[in-house]
Amino acid sequence: MTERKTSRHEDVANRIVSLIAEGAYKAGDRIPSLRELADSLRVSVNTVREAYAHLEERRYIEARSQSGYFVLNRPEIARLGEPHPAAMDPDRVSLCRIYCAYQELGTAPEDACGLGIATLAQDMWPLERLQKATVDAVRLRGNEALHYQLGPGYGPLREQIAITGLSGGSRLSPDEIIVTSGCQEAIYLALSVLTRPGDTVAVESPIYFNLLKLMEYLGLKVLEIPCSPVDGMHVETLRFALDQYDVKAVLTIANYHNPTGSLMPDERKEELVSLLSRRGIPLIEDDIYGELCFSGERPRTCQSFDRDGIVLLCSSFSKTISPGLRIGWISPGKWQREIEELKTLINLGSSSIPQIATALLLQDGGFQRHVRRLRTSLRDKMAALRAATLECFPEGTVVSDPAGGMVLWVELPDGKNARDLYKRALERDIVIAPGSMFSLQGRFTSMLRLNAGVWGPTTGKRIAELGALAAEMPGASRSPVAGTGTEGKAV
Amino acid sequence: MTERKTSRHEDVANRIVSLIAEGAYKAGDRIPSLRELADSLRVSVNTVREAYAHLEERRYIEARSQSGYFVLNRPEIARLGEPHPAAMDPDRVSLCRIYCAYQELGTAPEDACGLGIATLAQDMWPLERLQKATVDAVRLRGNEALHYQLGPGYGPLREQIAITGLSGGSRLSPDEIIVTSGCQEAIYLALSVLTRPGDTVAVESPIYFNLLKLMEYLGLKVLEIPCSPVDGMHVETLRFALDQYDVKAVLTIANYHNPTGSLMPDERKEELVSLLSRRGIPLIEDDIYGELCFSGERPRTCQSFDRDGIVLLCSSFSKTISPGLRIGWISPGKWQREIEELKTLINLGSSSIPQIATALLLQDGGFQRHVRRLRTSLRDKMAALRAATLECFPEGTVVSDPAGGMVLWVELPDGKNARDLYKRALERDIVIAPGSMFSLQGRFTSMLRLNAGVWGPTTGKRIAELGALAAEMPGASRSPVAGTGTEGKAV
Repeated sequence: MTERKTSRHEDVANRIVSLIAEGAYKAGDRIPSLRELADSLRVSVNTVREAYAHLEERRYIEARSQSGYFVLNRPEIARLGEPHPAAMDPDRVSLCRIYCAYQELGTAPEDACGLGIATLAQDMWPLERLQKATVDAVRLRGNEALHYQLGPGYGPLREQIAITGLSGGSRLSPDEIIVTSGCQEAIYLALSVLTRPGDTVAVESPIYFNLLKLMEYLGLKVLEIPCSPVDGMHVETLRFALDQYDVKAVLTIANYHNPTGSLMPDERKEELVSLLSRRGIPLIEDDIYGELCFSGERPRTCQSFDRDGIVLLCSSFSKTISPGLRIGWISPGKWQREIEELKTLINLGSSSIPQIATALLLQDGGFQRHVRRLRTSLRDKMAALRAATLECFPEGTVVSDPAGGMVLWVELPDGKNARDLYKRALERDIVIAPGSMFSLQGRFTSMLRLNAGVWGPTTGKRIAELGALAAEMPGASRSPVAGTGTEGKAV
Repeated sequence: MTERKTSRHEDVANRIVSLIAEGAYKAGDRIPSLRELADSLRVSVNTVREAYAHLEERRYIEARSQSGYFVLNRPEIARLGEPHPAAMDPDRVSLCRIYCAYQELGTAPEDACGLGIATLAQDMWPLERLQKATVDAVRLRGNEALHYQLGPGYGPLREQIAITGLSGGSRLSPDEIIVTSGCQEAIYLALSVLTRPGDTVAVESPIYFNLLKLMEYLGLKVLEIPCSPVDGMHVETLRFALDQYDVKAVLTIANYHNPTGSLMPDERKEELVSLLSRRGIPLIEDDIYGELCFSGERPRTCQSFDRDGIVLLCSSFSKTISPGLRIGWISPGKWQREIEELKTLINLGSSSIPQIATALLLQDGGFQRHVRRLRTSLRDKMAALRAATLECFPEGTVVSDPAGGMVLWVELPDGKNARDLYKRALERDIVIAPGSMFSLQGRFTSMLRLNAGVWGPTTGKRIAELGALAAEMPGASRSPVAGTGTEGKAV
């Protein structure tokens, strides 16, 4: 572990931010005086004064004359997942913490899983188009369907991916694309090629739990970089982390992040790519939600800002055509040869029929028409889910406001525990994804992820049930959660 | 490296066997006298006498009065790949040696690859049945086709695999089967779960080159156990090897081995499983050719003798329905949970449409009828290929006599180099698989693998061309190839 380089007063400030983020201090709370904190942390009063000045500047606290320092009511959405020093230790993934939660979800009654996973309702999948494309694939291109599509995959599919703008502004040739069995396999290939066991990878926090499981399997250490539900990964914190640790790769879901729904602005994408490019660190970009903008143009990818081939862009058709298709792709920049070799080694290639069917769907424009309708539909469903949650959940509940994708990130008030809500909901056959699944550090305990993709006539009723359950639940006792023992209490 | 425990005279005997196997000594050759060999190896005359007695007993050599010791003309097929001590050092796979050869094959003109790969001619694939099953899959089971088939895969497919005897005598329940993207992925999963980098895996020698590549990627050491083209892996040699080395897993293609075509007799399968069971070493069984018997019942799998769950049975429909389908399966014995987790981690599951289509093909009996015809057809094609090779290749060429599968293993006479033949043939757009691809030890340089699965009206002409090319080629100079330097020459 390399040595931390933060100054004394930054350490103190970070600790306060951490406690605010974890809900130990809430808006309006008085925090310790300069003298109290200096004593308990055994630092000088000046150090604490500098720290508080720093926090005042960043609008975390304010000084009220004669009364001391008070936590400010920051814009609530931005407060979710604020930069958070407690997340700065590379931490081996705990299989049991993540996987057990996932397993529980997986074995719940199937028809109730919808709110807990990130997928579309069945009637949003283009079944008829897929049927037609599949029938054409075996009838018109039967011989191709029989053969391996070795190495990079079916040529016409790679051409379609290249020309239909699925890469969000990356100008790709078909030769720069490798077909995979879903986005998960694309990321598996990328991580396998870029890292060795024991390496450290920086990811957004919170982050999709299956990616954490993957990193656990690969024996990686995970550095959780705070991610705002508004504008994504905090690049300044990443820069800081890169100074501290030997990071072998960074992984981001820049467009409609899972679970926060955030969209990284173009300038920040450019900044991120430029930062990593200068340091020669590869960026794995999971763009699986990129097509699902609620309005306007689909957002650009980080890769579209990449001039050095350091971005490995991963995506799939699981959120647009259907997950059962298992057709994804990777545009692996400089690692084209290595990824192609590994894909061949693992399973020689993806199944030919779904590759050909997908190519046909893309070729005749059916895919584009479908996606346009899907965007509008998802926008409406998200608005409905969001409104219902704000209406039915207890006062003080905070929800994200995504501009695309399908997941809503919700924070329960009063430190109520989302894992408890998960358990209570399961008894009523409602499955949600509790926030703790999306971190290795016991963070996001009051958060949960809801899926707008399954919104339908009966979902409002379920949200009302959920809200009522949440209202019944007790709030957390006001104990600091980021620190432990004496030190934590003292702050 | 653990210490070898062979006795002195066994060492000497093994060296002679090795030189015979490599073609340095041929039938009728005189080998050194007792005194000559004792001097050059700095061992006692008694040791050499014991070694020669051992070799006489095993019918490798005979003593002729007043003339010395001579190499016997052993049954030629059995001589291919005889137990071979030079193969007994675990050897890290050389990527370049294997992969370069493979790449060259891969980039050769496609229509000429047929003889070099192990696959069926296109007209042997059940295109119509597959078309119908695929259309039914999306039309009748459209909703299932859209969804993930997470974890172990599509239930009805696993049921069909369990009840249709595809497991060669293993009595499996659907819950003991996990669907994979081809047999390659099944073996990838098995090796990944069973081994860590640096571990040693014992395999047949020669062995399918893609498995060597896989082991290289996983950082494994490979222990090559001799495999006879008649009856497969030499279990006695394996037992010996297990005493010497810490072997973490054994991999076998017991039924219609690739590339030798050998079929391991049931008693030997039982012996192999019992040996490994006692020692707690898992056996990965690649049964991809198991259905392709030329007559009678399909052979039993090693797994069918397994009582302790140590066999991980891997197979696929790539050699019966089509390789483009990418549907395989594994029955992983004791490692059910680990394999299922890893499969989910890598790509969440295989594509749903081909899984459902395969299940439908199996359900209506179409698969079984197709396989019956396929067996007869392959038998005839193999007979034709074998006859043509014996007729057109230079005198002294030795060919295997497989009872199933699709590959013919050929040894050129006079130590002619099959890699040279490969290069010359490539200029005429004929692709063969040279024997050196199937080993890490520079073995099988005079061997090549031919594919009977593509036999058709024009193949005889190609075999004639190949034979003529082989006849033009010079034989190897008579230098011992297994040893190097002074020591080699001295023997």
